[in-house]
Amino acid sequence: MGNYRIAVLPGDGIGKEVTSGAVEVLKAVGIRFGHEFTFEYGLIGGAAIDEAGTPLPEETLRLCRESDAVLLGAVGGPKWDDNPPHLRPEKGLLAIRKQLDLYANLRPVVCYDSLVSASPLKPDLVQDVDFVIVRELTGGIYFGQPSGRVVENGEEKAVDTLLYKKEEIERIVRMAFILARGRKKKVTSVDKANVLSSSRLWREVAEEVAKQFPDVTLEHMLVDNAAMQLIRAPKQFDVMVTENMFGDILSDEASMLSGSLGMLPSASLSASGPSLYEPVHGSAPDIAGMNKANPIAAILSAAMMLRLSFGLTAEAEAVEHAVRQALDQGLRTADLAPSGGRIVSTNEMVEEIKTAV
Amino acid sequence: MGNYRIAVLPGDGIGKEVTSGAVEVLKAVGIRFGHEFTFEYGLIGGAAIDEAGTPLPEETLRLCRESDAVLLGAVGGPKWDDNPPHLRPEKGLLAIRKQLDLYANLRPVVCYDSLVSASPLKPDLVQDVDFVIVRELTGGIYFGQPSGRVVENGEEKAVDTLLYKKEEIERIVRMAFILARGRKKKVTSVDKANVLSSSRLWREVAEEVAKQFPDVTLEHMLVDNAAMQLIRAPKQFDVMVTENMFGDILSDEASMLSGSLGMLPSASLSASGPSLYEPVHGSAPDIAGMNKANPIAAILSAAMMLRLSFGLTAEAEAVEHAVRQALDQGLRTADLAPSGGRIVSTNEMVEEIKTAV
Ligand SMILES: CC(C)[C@H](C(=O)O)[C@@H](O)C(=O)O
Ligand SMILES: CC(C)[C@H](C(=O)O)[C@@H](O)C(=O)O
Repeated sequence: MGNYRIAVLPGDGIGKEVTSGAVEVLKAVGIRFGHEFTFEYGLIGGAAIDEAGTPLPEETLRLCRESDAVLLGAVGGPKWDDNPPHLRPEKGLLAIRKQLDLYANLRPVVCYDSLVSASPLKPDLVQDVDFVIVRELTGGIYFGQPSGRVVENGEEKAVDTLLYKKEEIERIVRMAFILARGRKKKVTSVDKANVLSSSRLWREVAEEVAKQFPDVTLEHMLVDNAAMQLIRAPKQFDVMVTENMFGDILSDEASMLSGSLGMLPSASLSASGPSLYEPVHGSAPDIAGMNKANPIAAILSAAMMLRLSFGLTAEAEAVEHAVRQALDQGLRTADLAPSGGRIVSTNEMVEEIKTAV
Repeated sequence: MGNYRIAVLPGDGIGKEVTSGAVEVLKAVGIRFGHEFTFEYGLIGGAAIDEAGTPLPEETLRLCRESDAVLLGAVGGPKWDDNPPHLRPEKGLLAIRKQLDLYANLRPVVCYDSLVSASPLKPDLVQDVDFVIVRELTGGIYFGQPSGRVVENGEEKAVDTLLYKKEEIERIVRMAFILARGRKKKVTSVDKANVLSSSRLWREVAEEVAKQFPDVTLEHMLVDNAAMQLIRAPKQFDVMVTENMFGDILSDEASMLSGSLGMLPSASLSASGPSLYEPVHGSAPDIAGMNKANPIAAILSAAMMLRLSFGLTAEAEAVEHAVRQALDQGLRTADLAPSGGRIVSTNEMVEEIKTAV
């Protein structure tokens, strides 16, 4: 019954295949639940560099701003690896995050029952793993200035700047607490407060925010320890909140708990406008166009869109249920092969999920 | 036959217990092989703050400079957690690294046969794992300026600076290549070149250095991917080289491949003077003084000292062999309990190893 405008930015490599799969599933949801989804396509990343000479054309931004939500695939590939920094696909991704104020990147890490054996970790460690990484996405060393190359007294140097404002920390930590309230009521704030000034501010602000959530437990963990605990005892986590770069590293690591990076969806919530949904995985140039990619991360990202941008809980659950069912029936894309089952193509997986919606 | 002066800096928490174990083992080596090791003790970390009002007293530095090598335990503990930054135990560690020019931190990651089942990873993934992480230790965001708190237009901010000079990158990458030459001839350089300027310089310099080592393969890996690959397929690595903060995170993660952080030794090689040897683990205040800590990381650090600072290969091998034998006989400190065997105290483990030397 609702009417929703979705901007679709396939990007590069398998980004195209997996967003197309997610769109098909959304269409099936529309038919089953009587919503009208309109999909409008925009360029980003390498595709945008090739066609428009810039990794994030103004037109794409306009399209996103006029939409109710954005579905993104992935960007990057060897073709553009030697481009100058401002003409790299990743710049498009970083720019859209900044421009749309997508400060809160939610990366749920769930181990599905039928994929327990796909993980490199022992089954009893990953069974029932269910937590969410809340990654700050528009600050920190990704955006701090100065960043660049300098030659001083004949010495060549390069510099990057890790900068956080108090308010930037506040809003992301608050998001983590709000999420924890609806979950197991535990927030693990990850920092490197024994070395970094920015981490010491982070820790202070986390303590302050925690006072407004007396029903939620806050614990601090150093990032090196967190990298270890994630595989030593992942079930200890409920909501993990951390700054941009640490979140990047820890969430890729955590993907192994769910069996494959191809399983991890994400939502990037905006402070002011439409939010963006994208799989955590990259453009995987090595398997692009081969109908082998796992579309589940993109499909689960679409489910997050239904829930978080449109408030369509039943619809989101229908998608998640369909994914679970396809896995339970033994369908596996190549990345999930270690867990047995029947290897299927991207299209077959999408087909199965969309008919089960 | 040799005469060696060793500075011992036990530091805090279990640092005391494990260095004392390593000293006992070195004494046994001295007797068996006819060397004279003299041990002189110095303060660092919280212990130094308490007794001398600073985390790295001048006297400690002098002692180190007059020694042939330094054996360090660990620093830190809740007692000093609320101290101002310059009076924190970790400052002592960072200062000694800088002062002694300990730029090359070697962290071997080995999975001993009898500990295969102690790892959270599946046995077939960790069996025969044997690589070394080469972490840059005196540059990057640990030392870059500015670093601190600022209030601008009423806004509170904190900043840290990631800075690398070309020469700093050159010398650490060269170290990695030299090590790879004596191993499986493969260097994996880890960076975040799709985002950081410093990483782009890092990658360029790595390429340049590689030209001098045509017999060694160089591959680049993004840090997020590396965090994933370390647990997905750890046997792909031979020598991994990376900057200070990434090395901190990845080596703690990698410790899980060896079963326990209590197994990981390290060498911090100096560009100009004596090198330093320390376990990768921290001061573990929760088990300090309980005779429960795993002394193996410290003992294997002493073995690295024998090999790398004194050139005593047979002696180093004797220590490593004794460690392997104790593990094969089923002795386990509490951290290694998941692999079965008999739980023993720190002292029992040390006793067993030193008599087997
Ligand atoms: C492509 C890259 C710039 C990006 C990041 O580092 O944020 C990616 O790794 C991610 O996690 O979304
Ligand atoms: C104690 C801390 C400052 C130190 C570091 O971050 O280098 C430690 O984690 C290490 O790995 O040696």
